Amino acid sequence: MRRVVRHAAAAVALSTVLSFAAAQETGKPLLGFTAASAVTERAWETKFKALPDSKKIADNMHLLAAHPHNVGSEAQRKNAEWLLQQYKSWGWDAQLETFDVLYPTPKTRVLELLGLHPYKARLEEPPVPEDPYTQDKSPAMPPYNIYAMDGDVTGTLVYVNYGNLADYDELARNGVSVKGAIVIARYGGGWRGLKPKLAYEHGAIGCIIYSDPADDGYAQGLTIPEGPMRPKWGVQRGSVADTTLYAGDPLTPGEPSVPGTKRLAIKDSKVIMQIPTIPISWGDAEPLLQQLGGRTVPAAWRGALPLTYRFGPGSAKAHLKVESDWGTKPVIDVVAKLKGSEEPDTWIVRGNHYDGWVNGADDPISGQSALLEEARALGELHKQGWSPKRTLVYTAWDGEEPGLLGSTEWAEKHADELIKHGALYINSDENGRGFFSANGSQSTELLVNDVTHEMTDPESGKSVWDRQKAAQQAGRGRGAARPASEVERATIEFGPAGSGSDYAGFVDHLGVASINIGFGGEDRSGTYHSAYDTPWHWDRFGDKEQVYGKLFAQTAGLIVMRMADADVMPYSFNELSLTVSSYASNLKTELKQLQADSAARTRLLTSGAYQLANDPRNSLQPPPALPMPPAMDFSTLDVALDKLKSAAAHYQQATANASSLPAAKRKQLNDDLAVSERKLISADGLPGRPWTKHLLYAPGTFTGYGASTLPGVREAVEAGRYDEAKQQLSVLVQALNEEAAWIDHMAGEAGQ
Amino acid sequence: MRRVVRHAAAAVALSTVLSFAAAQETGKPLLGFTAASAVTERAWETKFKALPDSKKIADNMHLLAAHPHNVGSEAQRKNAEWLLQQYKSWGWDAQLETFDVLYPTPKTRVLELLGLHPYKARLEEPPVPEDPYTQDKSPAMPPYNIYAMDGDVTGTLVYVNYGNLADYDELARNGVSVKGAIVIARYGGGWRGLKPKLAYEHGAIGCIIYSDPADDGYAQGLTIPEGPMRPKWGVQRGSVADTTLYAGDPLTPGEPSVPGTKRLAIKDSKVIMQIPTIPISWGDAEPLLQQLGGRTVPAAWRGALPLTYRFGPGSAKAHLKVESDWGTKPVIDVVAKLKGSEEPDTWIVRGNHYDGWVNGADDPISGQSALLEEARALGELHKQGWSPKRTLVYTAWDGEEPGLLGSTEWAEKHADELIKHGALYINSDENGRGFFSANGSQSTELLVNDVTHEMTDPESGKSVWDRQKAAQQAGRGRGAARPASEVERATIEFGPAGSGSDYAGFVDHLGVASINIGFGGEDRSGTYHSAYDTPWHWDRFGDKEQVYGKLFAQTAGLIVMRMADADVMPYSFNELSLTVSSYASNLKTELKQLQADSAARTRLLTSGAYQLANDPRNSLQPPPALPMPPAMDFSTLDVALDKLKSAAAHYQQATANASSLPAAKRKQLNDDLAVSERKLISADGLPGRPWTKHLLYAPGTFTGYGASTLPGVREAVEAGRYDEAKQQLSVLVQALNEEAAWIDHMAGEAGQ
Repeated sequence: MRRVVRHAAAAVALSTVLSFAAAQETGKPLLGFTAASAVTERAWETKFKALPDSKKIADNMHLLAAHPHNVGSEAQRKNAEWLLQQYKSWGWDAQLETFDVLYPTPKTRVLELLGLHPYKARLEEPPVPEDPYTQDKSPAMPPYNIYAMDGDVTGTLVYVNYGNLADYDELARNGVSVKGAIVIARYGGGWRGLKPKLAYEHGAIGCIIYSDPADDGYAQGLTIPEGPMRPKWGVQRGSVADTTLYAGDPLTPGEPSVPGTKRLAIKDSKVIMQIPTIPISWGDAEPLLQQLGGRTVPAAWRGALPLTYRFGPGSAKAHLKVESDWGTKPVIDVVAKLKGSEEPDTWIVRGNHYDGWVNGADDPISGQSALLEEARALGELHKQGWSPKRTLVYTAWDGEEPGLLGSTEWAEKHADELIKHGALYINSDENGRGFFSANGSQSTELLVNDVTHEMTDPESGKSVWDRQKAAQQAGRGRGAARPASEVERATIEFGPAGSGSDYAGFVDHLGVASINIGFGGEDRSGTYHSAYDTPWHWDRFGDKEQVYGKLFAQTAGLIVMRMADADVMPYSFNELSLTVSSYASNLKTELKQLQADSAARTRLLTSGAYQLANDPRNSLQPPPALPMPPAMDFSTLDVALDKLKSAAAHYQQATANASSLPAAKRKQLNDDLAVSERKLISADGLPGRPWTKHLLYAPGTFTGYGASTLPGVREAVEAGRYDEAKQQLSVLVQALNEEAAWIDHMAGEAGQ
Repeated sequence: MRRVVRHAAAAVALSTVLSFAAAQETGKPLLGFTAASAVTERAWETKFKALPDSKKIADNMHLLAAHPHNVGSEAQRKNAEWLLQQYKSWGWDAQLETFDVLYPTPKTRVLELLGLHPYKARLEEPPVPEDPYTQDKSPAMPPYNIYAMDGDVTGTLVYVNYGNLADYDELARNGVSVKGAIVIARYGGGWRGLKPKLAYEHGAIGCIIYSDPADDGYAQGLTIPEGPMRPKWGVQRGSVADTTLYAGDPLTPGEPSVPGTKRLAIKDSKVIMQIPTIPISWGDAEPLLQQLGGRTVPAAWRGALPLTYRFGPGSAKAHLKVESDWGTKPVIDVVAKLKGSEEPDTWIVRGNHYDGWVNGADDPISGQSALLEEARALGELHKQGWSPKRTLVYTAWDGEEPGLLGSTEWAEKHADELIKHGALYINSDENGRGFFSANGSQSTELLVNDVTHEMTDPESGKSVWDRQKAAQQAGRGRGAARPASEVERATIEFGPAGSGSDYAGFVDHLGVASINIGFGGEDRSGTYHSAYDTPWHWDRFGDKEQVYGKLFAQTAGLIVMRMADADVMPYSFNELSLTVSSYASNLKTELKQLQADSAARTRLLTSGAYQLANDPRNSLQPPPALPMPPAMDFSTLDVALDKLKSAAAHYQQATANASSLPAAKRKQLNDDLAVSERKLISADGLPGRPWTKHLLYAPGTFTGYGASTLPGVREAVEAGRYDEAKQQLSVLVQALNEEAAWIDHMAGEAGQ
């Protein structure tokens, strides 16, 4: 409601001034702009929006994804140089920044089933006759899981479903141990690296990860070449480095991998997985699963192969041998700047990686190609006379796939500048047809909502905002599972930052406000991290015309321009306050639920219900007792949330006319805004992971990609570490109090 | 709470009298018995419980299921005669009652896919080398769906998932019509006959029903012979007669099929399905599904075959030809009586069918074999001097599989006697290892709870009651999905009566209080209605030792004895009152939900959210607007429920010592109790189905097996017939008022 009032009031004030404006769009006020500067901004934005060209985006993809271009490859070096030349040709101040990082490459990969019906796994992805890119003779990286230890192990096989914590509970109830065994897990259900990590912690000696056709194969749709889904021999490569602890070079946590940095010994790196791990296709998995013995698994564990999924073990042993070259490779970031005219020290960083596991047309070139066009358009605008007030830093990150290497090393190298002046990092990765999505720092939520209200979705002819909201309401695309209460909010979905792309070094580690944006949710594909993610596949099954590539370049560019051009950077804190309050109430609910679950579990254990209900022919171990979380005193948190709410309201009210403050005052306010997210980090980091410092979101220790919110407190509660939870609560409360005080301070600066 | 007090108070009163009693069991009072008669009863019950013999139950099965014994077969006639002799040899007054019913048998069955990759369906179940019963040369009924019209149709194929209402909504959203097509549906997700019924109503010309391995095949466990689940060529036979309208001979609704009864013309029978329908194996379904075109179906529609499930149609047409001999066959009920000593006109009927689709070892011989041993034990007890006060009528029903023929025709033939004096019908069907389950008339709920408290479960050594409750709490067996509130109730699960077994003629049509009981939930099987449901399979994968067969004979026998021997029949009405109140609040909630759904749907249709969210490459039709149910005035229902509650409490309090009333008064009270369920039926029947008269439960029109509770009102609301809903509400309220008045009247009779 308040937001509507603000717009309406401002609109009245401006209505006479803007009589020369052409359309209703230019009649609207802009957050952070005076009426006059809004008019100028609108004019530049209109010019900007006309510049991106779908054809050029398509050309970018066909060039960048023409050959396998993983880290260290010749194709990737050529891509880097081409990108550099592009930026230079568009008038950007561009350079390559290179880091030498630990980058194991596969030397030996053997997986075989021994015994009566031996099988030797193929472990490769044959070309598809229809797809010329798969005929490429360039050296492609074969399927492997980078950052898993070498090993040569032989053991029985146990199927562990997705291999997450709940799956090990199920195994325990069924009396199945993975001790001394090789586990076979299917992809999905959470972060890839959690599979070998939990397998190792449960005593397994090796880990096989396969793509079940239920998850991205024939069950989901026709397979390549008839359809977009993963074929029989398609393999998902991927990193198993434990980025929940830290991202970047496993040997240089918190430091850039530049000459002179002290490196850990490989054996001392906590992010390297301790057991040999290999990714395989379902073609290779089927003979292994067929020979498993033991009980039938529960329904939720069953994939789409035509067999009875069983826990194992079987009579046959498996032999897994994985050896890598543990050398270093260069990761080459392309970094291009447009210097700010008024606040040049303040950085707005925009990035998308450009390394692919193989050709990587979708991941990441669909995003990178659009970003490039966005950069070209901004360069063109600059040539026409436009200058951002703040410095734009456009980047193409290398080495995202193995472990967010390029972005993290760069963020660590430029940590001082980013901490002082990093106003916003805007990340993207893949892009495609469909619905807009954004997640990250809520201080930018209002800006993102404003921009998406203004952009027109090409498929529906309505605004991007309207379409995202409609998708949530109608249960389509990514919004399908959202609760009704969320769907009815006045803002579109804006989730927390988890992990899995290049924002980690910025937001998790440094506390630089970050958002991750993109379009998608319409085209399905089963090419993820395989040799089949090619321009042919994209053109056949994806956004060949780059309709959404163009829209993305326009949308992201507009967010960048608003942030760069505004008199007062368009942050807002009401959404932050609302969201943190919802995290807190969710935490309280979770605590209550854990208490109720613990009590219920104890009651059933005490009454003997599990034994009593047991089928002697199919008996289950009773589940373990659950720790009983004590009541927690959240009163200091509630007070802090109230302060945050008041401060946010105060800031909104005080800054209504801040855009017309004298320049020096505005500069001070903007400097203070740029660092406002930094109050939300803990100097010590989260317990057990000092690199990960943000107190509102972190990659979940047991989810990885999925964010844990208020992670210091929440994960301690979930793990039964109640003293730590109390201590983390006080760290959180202190940070929220500091954030509230800082927002109040800024409101004071803006006050008239 | 009140129940506990009653027991405790009575226990104090009895404690001195019962000093001679052997065990704590005999120290407990018995509902409906004086202290003295309880002692006698306990003594007889102890003797009774020692009689059932597992070995004899196993022998019964091996004899009755030795050969295919469907309706009209020679083996079934022999079984009937053997059963008759058994009863006679045990001292029962036994006879056969035969009805000549419409019973089509297959003449022609052809299913083939035409086109480029033609396929001719096998439509038969090959012998399994390991199973001698499947080598039997006796004529077995081939797989067919009885009571589907003859037809010879050719059309494109459309996959409709389970073929229920929601599935047709999904088809509509995807723009797929079944008009002029043959549908292929998978078994499961509701009543079999709903599939051709809804297909016909949507314009389809034929219906194929197959068993997907996801539902009872390899996905669920190893298949025959290695495991118990359905093999590639296993087919589920079954009736598609619309027993939601009426059960029994399709040509004689409401009347017994005896000479002189007027018969409908086949074309005028509303329960016969209008399109040719055939059941097939997944071996035959796979080639058909593989050739379907169109979009990929949603996740919930996917089975476990290794293919992309698509809606269809494909380029190939299917040809389906089904012809039957539409003659009559005899159904032979075996009916045996033990005459009551005090109230011989009052009947307690106990039944289980004995016809099988093929050998039918599990369905129904597992239940029939145990029932027989129960009858033998009661006969033996009778020889030892025990006499029930009321008449026992033990039955073996023929023709249950095609449409509850034997039980329904018998109930219709004896309708007058049953209406006057039918106190209780106790049904069973299959039985197996595991957990007790009961559903039906709540006036017997307390009795069932009492008996199951006293019976010892052989696998856990605890009471049957305790184990059922533990299973619900621990999420095992049938109780797995129950809500916590239900699980915490002081009684074990006691659901409403739906349909699908022989109680329909008693409870739905005549309003004779009925319960359906059995053990099960531990052994899985995929033999349902196939040639593989044999004693070999039972011995290999089921309760070979008949541990639960014996327990079942004891448990059911005890319920019968209590009801037959009590001074005052052990009805109780508190549970009825509680349950009807819960149905009512559930109905109110459903109405509110329908209103909310309608409003939400209209809002999204009006806002254009569906169009806006549409993917132009994969567009969905918007769902239709939902009718908005008006507010309903439930105040008369609430008043009636209050009356029922007071009456039930009044009855409980007034009858505390009713067992010691003078004989004539007891006789009158028992006569009144016997008919108390009859107040709950509507003389006119439910709207559109006059045969189905019970107002508390009916087979759901769109669920079939699943019961609809308060069906007159609920189904009218669900279908948007609001005037009818109001009218049915007043019918229901009147019945509840009459029931309450009747219970009050009985309390008055018992009053001292």
